[in-house]
Amino acid sequence: MIIDRLYEEVERKGNVCVGLDTSLEYIPSTMKNSYHSVDDVLFYFNKRIIDATIDIVPCYKVQIAFYEAHGLNGMLAYKKTLDYIRNRGAIAIADIKRGDISSTAKAYAKAHFEGDFESDIITLNPYMGFDSVVPYLDYVKNKEKGLFILLRTSNEGAKDIQYLNIDGKEKVYNYVGDKIKDIASKHMGKCGYSSIGAVVGGTHLEEADEIRDRLGNIFFLIPGYGAQGGSGSDVASYLENGNGGVVNSSRGIITSYKKYEDGIEKLDYYVRKAALDMKEDILSETKTM
Amino acid sequence: MIIDRLYEEVERKGNVCVGLDTSLEYIPSTMKNSYHSVDDVLFYFNKRIIDATIDIVPCYKVQIAFYEAHGLNGMLAYKKTLDYIRNRGAIAIADIKRGDISSTAKAYAKAHFEGDFESDIITLNPYMGFDSVVPYLDYVKNKEKGLFILLRTSNEGAKDIQYLNIDGKEKVYNYVGDKIKDIASKHMGKCGYSSIGAVVGGTHLEEADEIRDRLGNIFFLIPGYGAQGGSGSDVASYLENGNGGVVNSSRGIITSYKKYEDGIEKLDYYVRKAALDMKEDILSETKTM
Repeated sequence: MIIDRLYEEVERKGNVCVGLDTSLEYIPSTMKNSYHSVDDVLFYFNKRIIDATIDIVPCYKVQIAFYEAHGLNGMLAYKKTLDYIRNRGAIAIADIKRGDISSTAKAYAKAHFEGDFESDIITLNPYMGFDSVVPYLDYVKNKEKGLFILLRTSNEGAKDIQYLNIDGKEKVYNYVGDKIKDIASKHMGKCGYSSIGAVVGGTHLEEADEIRDRLGNIFFLIPGYGAQGGSGSDVASYLENGNGGVVNSSRGIITSYKKYEDGIEKLDYYVRKAALDMKEDILSETKTM
Repeated sequence: MIIDRLYEEVERKGNVCVGLDTSLEYIPSTMKNSYHSVDDVLFYFNKRIIDATIDIVPCYKVQIAFYEAHGLNGMLAYKKTLDYIRNRGAIAIADIKRGDISSTAKAYAKAHFEGDFESDIITLNPYMGFDSVVPYLDYVKNKEKGLFILLRTSNEGAKDIQYLNIDGKEKVYNYVGDKIKDIASKHMGKCGYSSIGAVVGGTHLEEADEIRDRLGNIFFLIPGYGAQGGSGSDVASYLENGNGGVVNSSRGIITSYKKYEDGIEKLDYYVRKAALDMKEDILSETKTM
């Protein structure tokens, strides 16, 4: 199962997930000028990031919005990026946050687990209900694929729906967590986690222990480190014995070179350094029990 | 504003929105065999549907999942379909149900309101909160674009989140409706409706009057007619004086030809007939006050 592969990779390489939210403004103009098409610019920048980090991170999260924004050429860069990650043996998480039902969900599953845009794990949005998750489960069971379902996000607006109180007791996100747990229990890996995981923002520390305890078998995709304010100790609370989750950082890694005078010449070095520093930051705070 | 254009088109042409959820199995094999690439097959089928109905329907809803499922070629067909609808003067609703925050939401806005995949109105998923809607509002205000935000859907799983009781009183979807109303009030058209509308499944009649009353200025995109079980009288309850909403049908129209022995030869005729029948069915049930 994909979760066993991810668990093993985390054991070997740590918890950093590099976010390829590649915006043109993150790319040095020297690189932008060396390629004729936007798909080459985006892809060859991503390739450099991947080459600089592939031995020290378990996975990459590719945010599809940044590629859709460039139309057909962007989608070509998206495809090439996913292919490159997977061909080099790393795990590609497609951050697509799709959420739809029946034949439409089936079409999304085909789109992102087969063909041009094939990835290993996708993110999903549960608002339409948990029948919207079912069409993906065949791929989880039979094709080594995984899902991270949005549970509780790290933005201000998370309170609008996710934090509403149901019947005066539970919050919507707790309820969503219980539903994810139900589905997850049917897709357990040997490592003790399920191939159905959850997206949990790495802020709001006060809830981290409760969420971790309640969702024991759920592997977390944790955004919010760095640019969004989460620290190593914040995100470490969502982990267990250094595993059970990967922590995403995009700008904090892929634009790290911009802080240095020789950043453009030594882009690869600084990107790698940022990923290593983050890995150490999380590791130093990780609870072992 | 886009909503004034949509309102006018509905006044002239009725409430039918043709859903281009174009799956290869919906297309006659004679057509599939006449084109070399999947993008031509999908596009030329859509073109026939559009040509057969453009004078009798105000808009088309293009479900992006069915195009993503065919990778880069599918996305090319998606682009060509949107371009064709808009070039012929109809309104193109991109059913993308995206939902994300800050720079990612900005990238989605750029992706679907500019460039290759430009549409007139997009659907959004509110689960991450209403800050996820903000990045689109510039386009609503300054570029004649619109949004339909998921409120209450027609699938079985809608109960999982949308129907949860908040603090023992309101349902999540009522709360979402109130939030949509707040945002919508700042983007009102001359017609009395807002360019920020809502997606409301055309089933669950018992709630239709309440929803229509509560959300007076909200224009509805109503799926669920036909294949999903909604009738003309069901969906008419969500309308007001024959306007205030468009009713989507996909399979019910685009595969209608399959019911007839001479369906393939007279595909255009039967598709048009299905749209006209639907238009009449809704019109005959519409309340005028």
